Amino acid sequence: MNRRTRLPALGLMAAALFATSFAGSALAASPGNDPAALARIRDAAMTSDYAWERTADMTDLIGPRLSGSAGAAAAVTQVADAMRKLGAKVTLQPVKVPHWVRGAETGELVEYTGRPAGITQRVVLTALGGSSATPAEGLKAQVIVVNSFDELKARASEVKGRIVLFDVPFDQHMADRGLAGPAYGQGSNYRTNGPRIAAEMGAAAALVRSVGGADYRLPHTGNTGMQDGARIPAAAVSVEDAMLMSRLAKRGPLSMRLVLTPKILPDADSFNVIADLPGTDKADEVVIVSGHLDSWDLATGAHDDAAGVASAMAVFDLLKKLDYRPRRTIRLIAWMNEENGTRGARAYLEAQQANAGTHIGAIESDNGVGRPFGMRTSVPAASTRLFAPLQAALLPIGAGVFQRQDALSTGDLSGLERAGVPSFAPLVDTSAYFDYHHTAADTLDKVDPDNLRRNVAVMAATAWFLANVEEPIGRASVPAK
Amino acid sequence: MNRRTRLPALGLMAAALFATSFAGSALAASPGNDPAALARIRDAAMTSDYAWERTADMTDLIGPRLSGSAGAAAAVTQVADAMRKLGAKVTLQPVKVPHWVRGAETGELVEYTGRPAGITQRVVLTALGGSSATPAEGLKAQVIVVNSFDELKARASEVKGRIVLFDVPFDQHMADRGLAGPAYGQGSNYRTNGPRIAAEMGAAAALVRSVGGADYRLPHTGNTGMQDGARIPAAAVSVEDAMLMSRLAKRGPLSMRLVLTPKILPDADSFNVIADLPGTDKADEVVIVSGHLDSWDLATGAHDDAAGVASAMAVFDLLKKLDYRPRRTIRLIAWMNEENGTRGARAYLEAQQANAGTHIGAIESDNGVGRPFGMRTSVPAASTRLFAPLQAALLPIGAGVFQRQDALSTGDLSGLERAGVPSFAPLVDTSAYFDYHHTAADTLDKVDPDNLRRNVAVMAATAWFLANVEEPIGRASVPAK
Repeated sequence: MNRRTRLPALGLMAAALFATSFAGSALAASPGNDPAALARIRDAAMTSDYAWERTADMTDLIGPRLSGSAGAAAAVTQVADAMRKLGAKVTLQPVKVPHWVRGAETGELVEYTGRPAGITQRVVLTALGGSSATPAEGLKAQVIVVNSFDELKARASEVKGRIVLFDVPFDQHMADRGLAGPAYGQGSNYRTNGPRIAAEMGAAAALVRSVGGADYRLPHTGNTGMQDGARIPAAAVSVEDAMLMSRLAKRGPLSMRLVLTPKILPDADSFNVIADLPGTDKADEVVIVSGHLDSWDLATGAHDDAAGVASAMAVFDLLKKLDYRPRRTIRLIAWMNEENGTRGARAYLEAQQANAGTHIGAIESDNGVGRPFGMRTSVPAASTRLFAPLQAALLPIGAGVFQRQDALSTGDLSGLERAGVPSFAPLVDTSAYFDYHHTAADTLDKVDPDNLRRNVAVMAATAWFLANVEEPIGRASVPAK
Repeated sequence: MNRRTRLPALGLMAAALFATSFAGSALAASPGNDPAALARIRDAAMTSDYAWERTADMTDLIGPRLSGSAGAAAAVTQVADAMRKLGAKVTLQPVKVPHWVRGAETGELVEYTGRPAGITQRVVLTALGGSSATPAEGLKAQVIVVNSFDELKARASEVKGRIVLFDVPFDQHMADRGLAGPAYGQGSNYRTNGPRIAAEMGAAAALVRSVGGADYRLPHTGNTGMQDGARIPAAAVSVEDAMLMSRLAKRGPLSMRLVLTPKILPDADSFNVIADLPGTDKADEVVIVSGHLDSWDLATGAHDDAAGVASAMAVFDLLKKLDYRPRRTIRLIAWMNEENGTRGARAYLEAQQANAGTHIGAIESDNGVGRPFGMRTSVPAASTRLFAPLQAALLPIGAGVFQRQDALSTGDLSGLERAGVPSFAPLVDTSAYFDYHHTAADTLDKVDPDNLRRNVAVMAATAWFLANVEEPIGRASVPAK
């Protein structure tokens, strides 16, 4: 099957542009969605170290990359440079991002029933993104421990001036049976909304039990949903310390001194990195492959989401090595600010709103790189049969599952999805993801090189498939909430 | 079998003393090592919450208990009070202990090949007990990474003025197949001796990869064996950061800024808590049940060794509830300063050297309270057959293994063992112990209440057995090294 014979003028122009920017690569014919081509992409992914090397560069050389930080800026430069090296056409799309900077953070249990004279106890905690600061010397208040929003409501009269601890356990059993996402949703509901609700009720500060399954006294940070004018100091305590505080509160009144001195600085200048591999005969149609550049500040964000960005980058590397040209343009986006604002996704959506219709599909890898089983997507149910050749190509690496949902509602792609662009995300084993996610332990050593290769195979084969599929795959139709 | 009929005068005197101090308990006959008595002890242990409550009191109410700290002093008081409440005769044996206090501790990788402008990276580390301090602003030096003492020797010319990192992985595979102790020994060899050897070679500071199997970026502290006059700053880095530093050192020269400001204060006054349950007809013979009061300062030392002390305390509680009187005196010792000096053990040995012969056996629970499988001991091989009734009693709870070694060489009991006193230690599953040991994560929630009950059953049945056994079990004969 020779697609080149059917190239229209636009495609030829795009191909010419491509030949210039994708230097050294001859203008070859696209093999399209031939099963052999999909298999070659998969096999090339499974023998490549490219994504590993890019993940290592981002995590080992830069480290943490919270929006507004020097690390985030370095990641923009590093990824843009690497994409230029692959011959891609790189654009830096300006994005104004929140600039929240962690400060001192300590918690000390200073009064409780049974406390021996002279004893106070340190708890392990970390400020949530968006937290305001306590006075430098801290604030001292009694702690009220609740296990739900209902309990908070029932105890509303006790909240004023107190430190509210939401002690809601992460449901690891759910995570173990394939429902890590919903388990995380249950838990992060308290992280996202708890401090705001406590603030509205007059609390002096809010603490949440870390959302995750590990038991290594690691606090899990993340963003919290307070707005200017109603901010209070807010932190995640380690699971162990939440349990300790609950036990002590059962013995009698518990007071603590809390020191959190984060700063909210003016919004900072940053960028989405956008790199195009222009299509041939349908170059004005776009398939996005993506991950996000920013990470939380406690670790190097290896799973979240250096490996995702690196997987997307590897799609370009593979196609270059194979000298494969897609019919549609494949666009890498390394999103900025997924973690605490999704400003990058908003900036892109704003710029491309009118072109949403030319976006055929958008892929993001942002659930860590546990073992991939296949692909999740929000294509219409009627289209799933079209993906049989893709599934067949991925089956030999155990990634043949094709799981459709009405909406994926991921951080960066949900705006495009609401505009009709089907979302795609590698379906990976996330049972251990929330052990590490947003903690100090999300580091390179947690990334399994073979799972990363499988992730690249899934991303690349899917991107290729979407860029060449003949039949319309239809539009996403996000159900009203 | 009525032992009372055979009570000699000394026994009667001891029993009278016992009746006074063990208030409210009538002078009953000892059932000795009757299988039914051993079974009753086991069953009572398996339905008791006493050890759990004591473990919770020590960890939740006091927290960390490093020698010389307010926590260690509070633990002396708490355990002494609890033992008095059980009617035991309590003695506080004075012990002068090292008083090392952790200060600030940060590590920052400031120069390495591929470092983007403006980027430095924080590593997670924690000072080792006995470390000296850097200047307050830290010291900056190039890092030399070695994987063995041999490599250090081969690179001796590079050591002067540098920071030496011993990057030696913990052998979790060994730990998984029941050899956690030897695996720990291999690793802690570098922690104990590495800084001293590096200091002797002129290093500016020494770092060791944390000794343990977990991958949650937790540094594992512990003591290091430097002496006054040859101390340098020494810290354990998390496994992840040791791996990072090794990878960066492979890319080119790596420099870091290290801040460690611990203080070595004058030796402090402290105590072993000693509590006797006097024997009947052989009251001058002693069986020790023990654990250690002190813990490292990063956590509440639940496994190491609050649960051990609590298990020993529970032996007294059980025998009181059962109204069982041992023929020999059962002596609880809550040792002080096992972690960084074993001064408590030395003080006891010094005071009791002349009486070593009256010590029939000494039990310590200090390997955490993973699932108990039985008992380890250094009794002579010829005596093991005597323990069949004890094994039979513990078999129903899966703890019937009786594992003899020529020497246990544990921290607190090794002096007594060298003086001929057979050591005993619950044989527990330690495959996960070094995930938590000496880290911030050694907290109450890691203690399984049923395993703690089993540990008490093993301790109590063994103590009872030793306190009543008719035949001589013989003396320990520690082989020359």
